[in-house]
Amino acid sequence: MELVTIDDVRSAAQRIRPHVVRTPLLPARWGDAERPLWIKPENLQPIGAFKVRGAFNAIGAVRERTEGPIDVVAYSSGNHAQAVAYAAATFGLRAHIVMPEETPNVKVQSTRDLGARVVLCGAGQREKVADEILTETTGVMIPPFDHPDIIAGQGTIGLEIAEDLPTVATVLIPVSGGGLASGIGTAVRALCPQAAIFGVEPELAADAAESLRVGHRVDWSIHDRNRTIADGLRSQPSALTFAHLQHVLDGIITVTEVEIRSAVRELASRGHLVAEPSGAVALAGYRKARTPLGQTVAILSGGNVEPRMLAQILTESD
Amino acid sequence: MELVTIDDVRSAAQRIRPHVVRTPLLPARWGDAERPLWIKPENLQPIGAFKVRGAFNAIGAVRERTEGPIDVVAYSSGNHAQAVAYAAATFGLRAHIVMPEETPNVKVQSTRDLGARVVLCGAGQREKVADEILTETTGVMIPPFDHPDIIAGQGTIGLEIAEDLPTVATVLIPVSGGGLASGIGTAVRALCPQAAIFGVEPELAADAAESLRVGHRVDWSIHDRNRTIADGLRSQPSALTFAHLQHVLDGIITVTEVEIRSAVRELASRGHLVAEPSGAVALAGYRKARTPLGQTVAILSGGNVEPRMLAQILTESD
Repeated sequence: MELVTIDDVRSAAQRIRPHVVRTPLLPARWGDAERPLWIKPENLQPIGAFKVRGAFNAIGAVRERTEGPIDVVAYSSGNHAQAVAYAAATFGLRAHIVMPEETPNVKVQSTRDLGARVVLCGAGQREKVADEILTETTGVMIPPFDHPDIIAGQGTIGLEIAEDLPTVATVLIPVSGGGLASGIGTAVRALCPQAAIFGVEPELAADAAESLRVGHRVDWSIHDRNRTIADGLRSQPSALTFAHLQHVLDGIITVTEVEIRSAVRELASRGHLVAEPSGAVALAGYRKARTPLGQTVAILSGGNVEPRMLAQILTESD
Repeated sequence: MELVTIDDVRSAAQRIRPHVVRTPLLPARWGDAERPLWIKPENLQPIGAFKVRGAFNAIGAVRERTEGPIDVVAYSSGNHAQAVAYAAATFGLRAHIVMPEETPNVKVQSTRDLGARVVLCGAGQREKVADEILTETTGVMIPPFDHPDIIAGQGTIGLEIAEDLPTVATVLIPVSGGGLASGIGTAVRALCPQAAIFGVEPELAADAAESLRVGHRVDWSIHDRNRTIADGLRSQPSALTFAHLQHVLDGIITVTEVEIRSAVRELASRGHLVAEPSGAVALAGYRKARTPLGQTVAILSGGNVEPRMLAQILTESD
């Protein structure tokens, strides 16, 4: 299987530069003395998550390859929906986003506010509905992680880490479908070969951890994966992303629900950053695991959390 | 009276560069179409507020002028205390911070955690106690705003705005003692002469707004100023900062307590940033006032808010 290369990531960086925030590495003086900590705050991207990087790269590449009008199609109830809607609107393209009927109305409305057409569908119908839209329109599908352009786009975070902290010893990355860890891992492996690279997953959705351990992809039921509060980490790697994860990760750390909530609280009170539970798992992994000594970067992948849930987590105690 | 110059601000930028975060300008696509909005997130500085800029510049300048051991002294119960403690520790200097006895224990402890000696004092005693420490030690006083080096340090924010958005039309800045607005105003006036520059104050502590209106400093009782939730905006300009404000500001916008709380909520839910009430007033001013059309920057000055207060504000409705 052909893997994404550092050159692909560099091309992506060129392509997306006008459209995404060059996030700083924030020194977190509240880290351990032996493992000084930096946060990479991707919650500060326009739609509140790293997903804009992959979306702008994939849609930008389509735009470069194609003359004339073209629509983009995606299925997602999460940050990928808003990222595709936002990137499509920026390029002046029409976006069709397929969402399950049970998607919270606030997310449907946010996606519509970005100019996308939202198509609601029944359980298990999303691929069929998306395929229908693809045949009706001059559409191109933008998948959430299973595509080299998406992986290369997310990998631009790794380029920025290598620029800002070339001596990094450890990088901690949330894992769901694996596009983020595949991309960052590709860039960091190439540019900072000394660094250890760990994925972080909720214990309740640790399919990728188990898959890496046994050497092939194992399937966890969606019922099981849905137990975690980290609603952005309920997907499973594809063959493409799993091949990358096998190649670039030193391992996966798993964290409990209590540890995730504690990390959300720590990011708000010490880092002054709003993280969604999925976005806080890398910090939870840092707190939990005996990762290598030295400079550590934790990716804060997104900040889209309901204010009421954040308020609830803030009033809990460790 | 001699005012701080753009060259002073440029020197400050050189001096503090290794120690502070070069914060990005964050495009807030949730701003008005006619007044596109950027947030300057100074809550992401090491101690959670812009105050590190002035503290590193003032203490760095002392360090350059002085051979041998030296102590620094400050009185503050707020972000200036932690900024001085942090900067002093970075330079290997001993810091003595005078705090009123009623300071919440969490703030006393945070300042001690940064290596400072905290000296508690009775009401109205802080200047006397600080003076005693100055005579006992080889100490230098680092005031919170009434000093050219502090003003120049805060002004580095204005340099960064001019670098990142030279076509800015409006800059909105919280006003308390006025060091922040004096410094940013000095830099933006020099580098972006087209920009309108507004201070923002709580209605309940609008002494600077009244002072500018009548043309001289008026005194509001501390009892009155203490009514606002914005506990970082209860100071009054000095002769030095007032002279700067008269020179650089186009006016001061005042905002209500409800508007401040709403801005804290908006920054968390739309910007994914934790702001203390004092840090959110510039956004409140943007929402309230008919400021000039065009690109607008709102300074988010700090993020040190108690988690319980943030949780409470998040659960309120507009």
